[in-house]
Amino acid sequence: MSSNNHYDVTAWPVGNPFDDIGEVINSILADIKDRQTVADANNGGKPGAVIYIPPGDYHLRTQVVIDVSFLRIHGSGHGFTSSSIRFNVPDDEWPDLHELWPGGSRILVDIPLTGDEEESQGAAFYVERTGSPRISSVEFSDFCIDGVHFTSDGSELHPENTYVNGKTGIYVANANDSFRVAGMGFVYLENALTIYHADALSVHDNFIAECGSCIELRGWGQASKITDNLIGAGFKGHSIYAENHGGLLITANNVFPRGASSVHLDGVTRSSVTNNRLHSFYPGMVVLAANSSEILVATNHFLRDHEPWTPFFGVDNGLDDLNGLLRISGSNNSVVGNHFSQIIDSQRIRPQGARPVVIRLVAGAGNFVSNNHVVAMDVRTTSNDSCYSAQVDALLTTEAADGLAVTTVMVDSESARNTILDSGSETQVVADRTVNALRPTPTIGF
Amino acid sequence: MSSNNHYDVTAWPVGNPFDDIGEVINSILADIKDRQTVADANNGGKPGAVIYIPPGDYHLRTQVVIDVSFLRIHGSGHGFTSSSIRFNVPDDEWPDLHELWPGGSRILVDIPLTGDEEESQGAAFYVERTGSPRISSVEFSDFCIDGVHFTSDGSELHPENTYVNGKTGIYVANANDSFRVAGMGFVYLENALTIYHADALSVHDNFIAECGSCIELRGWGQASKITDNLIGAGFKGHSIYAENHGGLLITANNVFPRGASSVHLDGVTRSSVTNNRLHSFYPGMVVLAANSSEILVATNHFLRDHEPWTPFFGVDNGLDDLNGLLRISGSNNSVVGNHFSQIIDSQRIRPQGARPVVIRLVAGAGNFVSNNHVVAMDVRTTSNDSCYSAQVDALLTTEAADGLAVTTVMVDSESARNTILDSGSETQVVADRTVNALRPTPTIGF
Amino acid sequence: MSSNNHYDVTAWPVGNPFDDIGEVINSILADIKDRQTVADANNGGKPGAVIYIPPGDYHLRTQVVIDVSFLRIHGSGHGFTSSSIRFNVPDDEWPDLHELWPGGSRILVDIPLTGDEEESQGAAFYVERTGSPRISSVEFSDFCIDGVHFTSDGSELHPENTYVNGKTGIYVANANDSFRVAGMGFVYLENALTIYHADALSVHDNFIAECGSCIELRGWGQASKITDNLIGAGFKGHSIYAENHGGLLITANNVFPRGASSVHLDGVTRSSVTNNRLHSFYPGMVVLAANSSEILVATNHFLRDHEPWTPFFGVDNGLDDLNGLLRISGSNNSVVGNHFSQIIDSQRIRPQGARPVVIRLVAGAGNFVSNNHVVAMDVRTTSNDSCYSAQVDALLTTEAADGLAVTTVMVDSESARNTILDSGSETQVVADRTVNALRPTPTIGF
Repeated sequence: MSSNNHYDVTAWPVGNPFDDIGEVINSILADIKDRQTVADANNGGKPGAVIYIPPGDYHLRTQVVIDVSFLRIHGSGHGFTSSSIRFNVPDDEWPDLHELWPGGSRILVDIPLTGDEEESQGAAFYVERTGSPRISSVEFSDFCIDGVHFTSDGSELHPENTYVNGKTGIYVANANDSFRVAGMGFVYLENALTIYHADALSVHDNFIAECGSCIELRGWGQASKITDNLIGAGFKGHSIYAENHGGLLITANNVFPRGASSVHLDGVTRSSVTNNRLHSFYPGMVVLAANSSEILVATNHFLRDHEPWTPFFGVDNGLDDLNGLLRISGSNNSVVGNHFSQIIDSQRIRPQGARPVVIRLVAGAGNFVSNNHVVAMDVRTTSNDSCYSAQVDALLTTEAADGLAVTTVMVDSESARNTILDSGSETQVVADRTVNALRPTPTIGF
Repeated sequence: MSSNNHYDVTAWPVGNPFDDIGEVINSILADIKDRQTVADANNGGKPGAVIYIPPGDYHLRTQVVIDVSFLRIHGSGHGFTSSSIRFNVPDDEWPDLHELWPGGSRILVDIPLTGDEEESQGAAFYVERTGSPRISSVEFSDFCIDGVHFTSDGSELHPENTYVNGKTGIYVANANDSFRVAGMGFVYLENALTIYHADALSVHDNFIAECGSCIELRGWGQASKITDNLIGAGFKGHSIYAENHGGLLITANNVFPRGASSVHLDGVTRSSVTNNRLHSFYPGMVVLAANSSEILVATNHFLRDHEPWTPFFGVDNGLDDLNGLLRISGSNNSVVGNHFSQIIDSQRIRPQGARPVVIRLVAGAGNFVSNNHVVAMDVRTTSNDSCYSAQVDALLTTEAADGLAVTTVMVDSESARNTILDSGSETQVVADRTVNALRPTPTIGF
Repeated sequence: MSSNNHYDVTAWPVGNPFDDIGEVINSILADIKDRQTVADANNGGKPGAVIYIPPGDYHLRTQVVIDVSFLRIHGSGHGFTSSSIRFNVPDDEWPDLHELWPGGSRILVDIPLTGDEEESQGAAFYVERTGSPRISSVEFSDFCIDGVHFTSDGSELHPENTYVNGKTGIYVANANDSFRVAGMGFVYLENALTIYHADALSVHDNFIAECGSCIELRGWGQASKITDNLIGAGFKGHSIYAENHGGLLITANNVFPRGASSVHLDGVTRSSVTNNRLHSFYPGMVVLAANSSEILVATNHFLRDHEPWTPFFGVDNGLDDLNGLLRISGSNNSVVGNHFSQIIDSQRIRPQGARPVVIRLVAGAGNFVSNNHVVAMDVRTTSNDSCYSAQVDALLTTEAADGLAVTTVMVDSESARNTILDSGSETQVVADRTVNALRPTPTIGF
């Protein structure tokens, strides 16, 4: 059908892409496999194909199942607009709105779901292939996957604010190599991108927002990168999550609220979380859990403040202010040169009257925490003029009347042999100096 | 006209794109709006469109006015070549040149201007829409916007060296969301990219050079990123400028001369300037002005040397060597792990005989300046062999005969309660130790 | 032939792209030059062109010679799959494999070579133009260049494991400006990308693996960037190499084994190696050689462990464990906030019984080494539980029985006036304190 392996969903004779783009793409995939049957014809034979999705609204009622390597599916626009803001506009104002929905090359995920399905059945794109070699070089770029609506989660939240609908944008079930996700938009999906067993994956320059969870690298994986994305998950979910990954590079991302975490690593080793801008409404922004070790967390900007938007007042991730913005259960990690802004209401601190913790070493050994700068402000009593930093606090060595006293580094008894340098004053670092090395940040006249 | 929302400017029946691509694109935009009138047809209805500009020379005599979301305008080449070098080649050598102008998918901005216009009237692309929601997901990629000529500014400069012509590449007047500018080339425009009120903007992997100012984020904005660009403004202008932005991530850019500044932030808060390579011919490379606060300036490479090119000898940004390469009027910022190379002619220091300042804290409080390395050389007296670093200076504790003595950190009396760690020796840091905390970089045998 | 400067290799009347895409592209280039002859027609005249390569297997028997600016050659897929793994699968399992070769828009380099050619003759794409101006804005994107096979190098290695075949992907011979290489795949080439005399080059978001050398910037150059790539060279070659470059930004790359080096800089100055994830099986990961100076090496993650794959057992780069993972022959460099994991077998240390060196300053002066964290483990005796870090070692001040004692920083006598801060304990840093400034990392109870 296509002599040059280039397909356009609007030109394909089987199915109607506007009614069900899933049927169309599956038919194209069957065509590719029909035509590319020879595994080795003169050093080639299965080059794969590219499938183009022009700008338009495409319903997807049939899951796309991908089992060929060297496939690129691309569109001409990530098409993000905020559905969350729009759903919280009063209905009688809707007729005045310029547009109501995301756009671009937009796939509306309309897979019928009862709620009893396996998670993968709610995926618009499902990649599944076993055997050898691992499926390689599948690329998704420059289109929009829209879950359209969230549904009630049984709470008092408006159904469109729950981040729940059982839908996933792209779900990769098996070991894979050299995949790319770039320039995509994901919106209103419970899970945007779920990838098992990734090797040399690139998730680059995407717009992933208003999804329950954004990027989850599950199972295990190695040597991947998550770079230069704009990301923001729902209050229950992960913005960036990885488990048992080695050599993961998470850098240059701008992660906005309201994810339950900004970056959550579970049993991850020898990886980097560097140079990101991270913003959250809750504690628990970066979590190194389950013995995550030898990770470099450096030159990130952490901002934690409070939820400002009425529809989500009272919603959070359940963690209190002793949890830490950065929480480490693991060994031999490096935490260097990060900036932390903790901008909260002293009357809303939990537990009441507690001194909020910024970096907390919960378990492990041998972590190196060096040259981090903590700024803490009480939004209740401070204007910009009277705000002050924990660093200033360190300098003054007493808490300012209208400031916010914090513990910049807390080392629990289950964590030992750590080195804490220049990351808070004598009074701001809580650590047993008989089992940890500590050099407090100098204060005036030291 | 286009059933799949895909337009090619060379195939559109209205106008001639080579004579006036502005007329053609405006006609296409009218067609999009004519066809996409329904705000909500089965969860969709206004997907937007993509407009393609093949390689070619397209004059733009009519300003393009964009008021639809989900629009991508793209070409097939950023088309940069140096017009600045070419204009300074003697005319009689022109016939020997392979080519004379930028190329790729190139728009020549030929809007008739008298000089009395509002700045926005000189814009090739003008984005303007009020009402709700904010205009979203407009994307510009992979084409070239060329202002073609500069004009006399009344000075002795050759008219083509003034960086003045009243032309702007893209001007976004109203609040906007999730815009993208990627892979573009901008050349010989007084302003390349001027965006008001940006939210979640991405300016990524562009080539913006030989423009008066390159990237200006004006008004206010949040959660944007300026990443991985090659940038260099004119001597009067900004390479990267932002005002009243929160959560801005400026990273992985290679910023070359001759911008009056490399990065200038005005009233910006809680943002990052990390991991950039910055090169300038003047002081005032990174400016945190107007109470810019809680900004992380980390692991950047600063190089300041002298203008090497004859046509611009004697031109600079007017700042003297006490100004500082990094200048901060603001509070609670973090300056960590930067490298500074100050390579200048001791006989050209201004004021004469002054000791140049590298980091200057002008006003504010609570800044954290830690582990920065300053290298200073006098081009007049040093070869590569005899050059030495300020660090070495610190080690020797006396100035080498042929080296350049600098103040690595100067804290003015209007700035207090700062912490300065390991960023210069006792003699290199000028700060009142009764109101600032200071740990000088250790010297030999300390 | 093409009124809009847009070419498709499968639609061009001259030649057969599947037999010899080189002949086809050269014919297209001739057409561009035939049509674009006027250097200045109304401020334009030579906009260049775009050449599209749809997914498919294209043999290249004739070298493509590029001498026009503003040319984009692009495909629809980088097409990487591991040929290395496949060639090491027993032949009788091949019929069970899903596919045998890389794919996407794939060029098979079939230039006939005898082995006596100049290196440039083995290049698939050869860019060569002298005169003025420099050739500008040539872009390669989103296709695959595959060398298909390696050949015997006379050693005992299987011929497909030698990384030798005399083939180069892209070779740029002359001074050039504003080139781009993005989204490409390179595989099984002796050299992927060799570029002389680059100015403002961007090598961004490529997949370059299983090549002898990946990126080499030769001769001299300035103001370029190598960002956000997945890269891994062969045991004889360079993953990233540059010589005599100024203002080079190497950031956000994930560099995997088995390159002889991860980043090798020769006479490079005023550049950045920041924020990369680097993994190697040998010492000599980052090399600043030949008086490379004023370079910032910051917030990188270094992991060195042992070759795990049977076909390459016994193969390495010939360097012993005293060489250093980071080795500096140069002055005034900054090494700040890096994490090093040295995970090796104590019984395989060379010279036997030596204490491995992590950072080694071989020659030069004025280097600033600050706040680096070294973790060292002996794979022979340690489980995850018993592993410990050099930092911990520093804390304990004695070597743990089952751990790996390392020298975190060694300063040779030819290097002097360096500053070493918080990068190892008293016993881990080997430096003459009469000519270097040293502050050891604090230990417990200091």
